[in-house]
Amino acid sequence: MRKIMNATILLLFVIGLSLSAQTEDDAIIRSIFDEALTEGESWDMLNELCEIGNRLTGSPGSLKSVEWAKKRMTDMNFDKVYTQEMMVPVWVRGEKETAAIYNAGKKTNVSICALGYSEGTGDRALKAPVVEVTSIEQVEEMTSDELKGKIVFYNRPMDPRLINTFHAYGGCVDQRSNGALKAQKKGAVGMIVRSMTLKLDDYPHTGTMNYGEELPKIPAAAISTKGAALLHHSLKDNPDLEFEFKMNCKNLPETMGYNVIGEIIGTEKPDEIIVVSGHLDAWDIAEGAHDDGAGCVQSMEILRMIDKLELKPKHTIRCVLYMNEENGTRGARKYAEVSKENNEVHIAAIESDCGGFAPRGFNIDGSDLIRDEALEKIQSWEEILEPYNLHHFKRGFSGVDINFLKDQDIPLIGFYPDSQRYFDFHHTEIDLCENVNKRELELGAASIASLVYLIDKYGLVASANSAD
Amino acid sequence: MRKIMNATILLLFVIGLSLSAQTEDDAIIRSIFDEALTEGESWDMLNELCEIGNRLTGSPGSLKSVEWAKKRMTDMNFDKVYTQEMMVPVWVRGEKETAAIYNAGKKTNVSICALGYSEGTGDRALKAPVVEVTSIEQVEEMTSDELKGKIVFYNRPMDPRLINTFHAYGGCVDQRSNGALKAQKKGAVGMIVRSMTLKLDDYPHTGTMNYGEELPKIPAAAISTKGAALLHHSLKDNPDLEFEFKMNCKNLPETMGYNVIGEIIGTEKPDEIIVVSGHLDAWDIAEGAHDDGAGCVQSMEILRMIDKLELKPKHTIRCVLYMNEENGTRGARKYAEVSKENNEVHIAAIESDCGGFAPRGFNIDGSDLIRDEALEKIQSWEEILEPYNLHHFKRGFSGVDINFLKDQDIPLIGFYPDSQRYFDFHHTEIDLCENVNKRELELGAASIASLVYLIDKYGLVASANSAD
Repeated sequence: MRKIMNATILLLFVIGLSLSAQTEDDAIIRSIFDEALTEGESWDMLNELCEIGNRLTGSPGSLKSVEWAKKRMTDMNFDKVYTQEMMVPVWVRGEKETAAIYNAGKKTNVSICALGYSEGTGDRALKAPVVEVTSIEQVEEMTSDELKGKIVFYNRPMDPRLINTFHAYGGCVDQRSNGALKAQKKGAVGMIVRSMTLKLDDYPHTGTMNYGEELPKIPAAAISTKGAALLHHSLKDNPDLEFEFKMNCKNLPETMGYNVIGEIIGTEKPDEIIVVSGHLDAWDIAEGAHDDGAGCVQSMEILRMIDKLELKPKHTIRCVLYMNEENGTRGARKYAEVSKENNEVHIAAIESDCGGFAPRGFNIDGSDLIRDEALEKIQSWEEILEPYNLHHFKRGFSGVDINFLKDQDIPLIGFYPDSQRYFDFHHTEIDLCENVNKRELELGAASIASLVYLIDKYGLVASANSAD
Repeated sequence: MRKIMNATILLLFVIGLSLSAQTEDDAIIRSIFDEALTEGESWDMLNELCEIGNRLTGSPGSLKSVEWAKKRMTDMNFDKVYTQEMMVPVWVRGEKETAAIYNAGKKTNVSICALGYSEGTGDRALKAPVVEVTSIEQVEEMTSDELKGKIVFYNRPMDPRLINTFHAYGGCVDQRSNGALKAQKKGAVGMIVRSMTLKLDDYPHTGTMNYGEELPKIPAAAISTKGAALLHHSLKDNPDLEFEFKMNCKNLPETMGYNVIGEIIGTEKPDEIIVVSGHLDAWDIAEGAHDDGAGCVQSMEILRMIDKLELKPKHTIRCVLYMNEENGTRGARKYAEVSKENNEVHIAAIESDCGGFAPRGFNIDGSDLIRDEALEKIQSWEEILEPYNLHHFKRGFSGVDINFLKDQDIPLIGFYPDSQRYFDFHHTEIDLCENVNKRELELGAASIASLVYLIDKYGLVASANSAD
């Protein structure tokens, strides 16, 4: 009987403890959301960052954004603010591109933009017949006779049936990344690719691409989906039509670029780090508001809120703004290299690079050694996070930048907002601050901050990369 | 041993059956989403409806929208298409409203719009000193001396901390609904109310309001949140400033209005009905794209898809487009009245009136007799619906129109899309088709259609309002 009593008392004590822990967690997470939604600075920060103008790696804007981020973090009294240097590629677009379809004597202008790294067309426009394909494999199977002197037009659309639009993007973007490389091997003189979007509109979507070792490097551009539809139908009528485009883009010598890093030092384990991050660089044709101004200001906002709310994290919370995610990932490589050299201990690395949309949850990734354990732990917090519409806690890709930390056995977490509208804006001239919703941005910052709070309090993975 | 074998075989058979049912459900729901996202017509329908122009109850546009919906449903080969007649109120805005703050000789224009039902200001503008309040209760506690000859300015903002913005709206809208009624009792000569939105912008949000029996009925308008902020700060500087506004709105004699109804007749239980619905009328200052063009075209699209995919529902699927949700709910009252008179059997009534945003799930409501049973049943389908980002299945308000069916013990289901952006557009001049995202609209149609499929196949509530 006494044993039972003791067990009962112990049980009640444990329940009591766990209830009070849950109540405390609920209260703190509520306070984080309240702060973001009523006194939040993410929206102001996004406006400030976007006002700088375009900030492609190596551009004057990119350097201004580095200065802005350093000053902003310093003004917000982060414990440490510093930069990491690395050499970065420099690519400039030059004058706005022009393009037209010449069909039986009629010229129709269409909207294009050069892909990052692309060579220009030289002093004159490039004009040639067009071969339309829907895959890289199709080009590989064609002969040089079929493609010599031609412009290859990759026109496989993103699959609208995929609910997660990033999966639709992933199923198509090989055309943009490797299309020119495959086409140049077969003697093609140029490459155009259907823009990576599910919308039918007139905004071409830029993005990075690769050339092979072989020469010559052929000019490569994205065409708007309306332009792609027109070209497709025109080719049905007249397979011999010609496409003309002119681009002044070029690659310049490498220069110095910078990651910007701010920290709040942990009270108990200052040498163990939780990273929150985004990338500071953005394509040059707009303000990079969703991609990835949102992720940068959310990461900064998280540290600001932790300080303001006096959460006094046990571990060091580090905000990393990478340079050069878009065309080289030199910043992320540098960060991973330094982390490895210094034997840094990361509890987790979180990235926000899917736009400033309404939060749904997190993708969990990492090496086989630690991924499932991290996932299970995060899933155990589902109930605490559910009131904030967070419901997605699954294995999935975390982010381009933190992916370089995978071999260090660090749990990788990608913030997962609703994906439906992301590719309406991604890499286009309308990726503007006005197309970000203030509340959605703020909810994202609060969601990630809540996860950081839970990871800091309860840990994530016992087995790997810990100083314990 | 034989018994065990038999039991095992039976168990395997049951597991097999249930697996194959789940596989069939998965396949059919997948086909619904594929149809909506690749061959869907909801977006085209929304464009057609919005092209009609404004369609406030009783307006020429409202009658055109009735004709359009009838024709569209007929063209889509619904089994039955018909209307329900009822008398409806008619209110017209007249010329665009003007308003200004007169502060120490300086006139500053601000954006307002009349509330529905409001009287105009007559031939001349109304100019008077302003008393700012933050609640109806505050007005009730004031004396007539304090308010006589004054304009009452209700300025309690929506609470940004509430994650569901409809809750923030619900916590504020009493000022708009009953503010004039309370103010007129105390001798006030006019009423203005801060617009119901979480955004700080220059779009005033109209909406309905009530007068008491007492006279005179004082003019009532919404002021944009920027205008409200300016007025608030100006009053701090100078409590004696004057506000002037001019409105030509008026109430006209009642006229005939129409609900539009289309049906696919059930193959097994044609007399048992599942309703999908939205409201056809919309405020006059825009196109009513989110409110509630989206709900109308989603409801029509559901029947189109059921027909196209040859789902052959057992029960009758009825699409109801109510008239007059915004200022009188005469259509919904009529529908409920006819349903009761005819002893119609409804398996469920679903309403989509929260905008064409990315789906999150459903709110479940209904009388105490059936609500919890319906909720539990719908929650049992969570796993089937989860791949489509549907995660919210909770008790909650279903919708203004179907709420009139509550006393008939019908399970009421409100489609629940993400609410963050709804009040950016709600009842403003920017509730336009271009501000609806095609995919988000389509995903909503597919989500509701999937629920209809499951309800039709498995039923919802055994206990009440069934012909069985």
